[in-house]
Amino acid sequence: MNNLKKMVGIEAAKFVKDGMVVGLGTGSTAAFFVAELGRRVAEENLKIVGVTTSSVTNTQARELGIPLKDIDEVDAIDLTVDGADEVDLDLNGIKGGGAALLMEKIVATYSQDYIWIADESKLVEHLGAFPLPVEVVSFGCGQLFRLFDKLGFRPTFRLDETGARLITDMGNHIIDLHLEKIEDPARLIKLLDETVGVVEHGLFKDMAKTVIIGSETNGVKIITK
Amino acid sequence: MNNLKKMVGIEAAKFVKDGMVVGLGTGSTAAFFVAELGRRVAEENLKIVGVTTSSVTNTQARELGIPLKDIDEVDAIDLTVDGADEVDLDLNGIKGGGAALLMEKIVATYSQDYIWIADESKLVEHLGAFPLPVEVVSFGCGQLFRLFDKLGFRPTFRLDETGARLITDMGNHIIDLHLEKIEDPARLIKLLDETVGVVEHGLFKDMAKTVIIGSETNGVKIITK
Repeated sequence: MNNLKKMVGIEAAKFVKDGMVVGLGTGSTAAFFVAELGRRVAEENLKIVGVTTSSVTNTQARELGIPLKDIDEVDAIDLTVDGADEVDLDLNGIKGGGAALLMEKIVATYSQDYIWIADESKLVEHLGAFPLPVEVVSFGCGQLFRLFDKLGFRPTFRLDETGARLITDMGNHIIDLHLEKIEDPARLIKLLDETVGVVEHGLFKDMAKTVIIGSETNGVKIITK
Repeated sequence: MNNLKKMVGIEAAKFVKDGMVVGLGTGSTAAFFVAELGRRVAEENLKIVGVTTSSVTNTQARELGIPLKDIDEVDAIDLTVDGADEVDLDLNGIKGGGAALLMEKIVATYSQDYIWIADESKLVEHLGAFPLPVEVVSFGCGQLFRLFDKLGFRPTFRLDETGARLITDMGNHIIDLHLEKIEDPARLIKLLDETVGVVEHGLFKDMAKTVIIGSETNGVKIITK
């Protein structure tokens, strides 16, 4: 699996050119992309500016010597490469397994080009087997949890390593919805967007235009929309 | 003006009965309501539990000796009374002049009954002369500001007394939109709900069922929907 993740990470780094502002995703697959960019900066003198999507990626990129700017210090982001927890055949996906969905979605929103990288296990016919992460305001999140429960969304709070409710980089909590199968992503997005207390959700619809999939049997496959 | 605010605050407190869980709003008008509840708790032995909508109201209520619980410690809120910065003829309104719109909207969402109190200057034919507060994630809020600017929303960042960007009780920033006239509230709500980086906005549509207005000439007027 790590081999596939590394393969697509390296492949995605080929899309990065000198002078680009590059959004750096979060998670185990994106980490291989960031590592490869770090290698190119160090060994090939690649000139880029990175914009990170989490404190974890920020630390990794700084250690690799990738020059960084805050998202508000750049005019726009040329290209963002990130992982995805599930991708369907329309290139819609679920993200947030690493609890960075809010910052990831904000960076994606301001990116000219947006690529997902994943091993083949992430490709699915229908989204929803992977629990859908929802970033929620801490105030009143217990009431929101009960609302999700009543709606049949089978919510669970994401916990940190101490067993307490995880706190995101933006100071919120994560509720994971165990939906099994999302029949109508657009309808669910509308409901979540309208729900008071929801900061953002991990459904990414019509955002990625390119997905790079790593497969044991077929190597690297690039799917575009 | 303060006389009218006090008048409606006292009037609203009459809706509060023994045993109720009461949502306590934020702002100069709501403060009169909270003060009157404090008086009734102290002098009339009124038995209630308060749920506050901001750190400011929390401090006021504690000083008055009103028993308080966190929103997640109660099953539901029987009645919430809050102020409004603008109210139109359909009882839709703008809130957030006191920067507490997020917690106010969360408390309102879980309230069985929801009453606004205001002096007559807040009643308007069309919403929008009062700048619409939007609570935004701090990460990428400069990009969001530019987006609002491009949309013609004339955004300004809310500043604190030191001139820095105000930080809300939930750790976010506020962007005020100077719209002058909101032609289609439902359309604007949809756009803001869908916008990545927007945590919540100060448009409250179809939430208040009762508005208590204080007028110099007509005294107290109760409008219901």
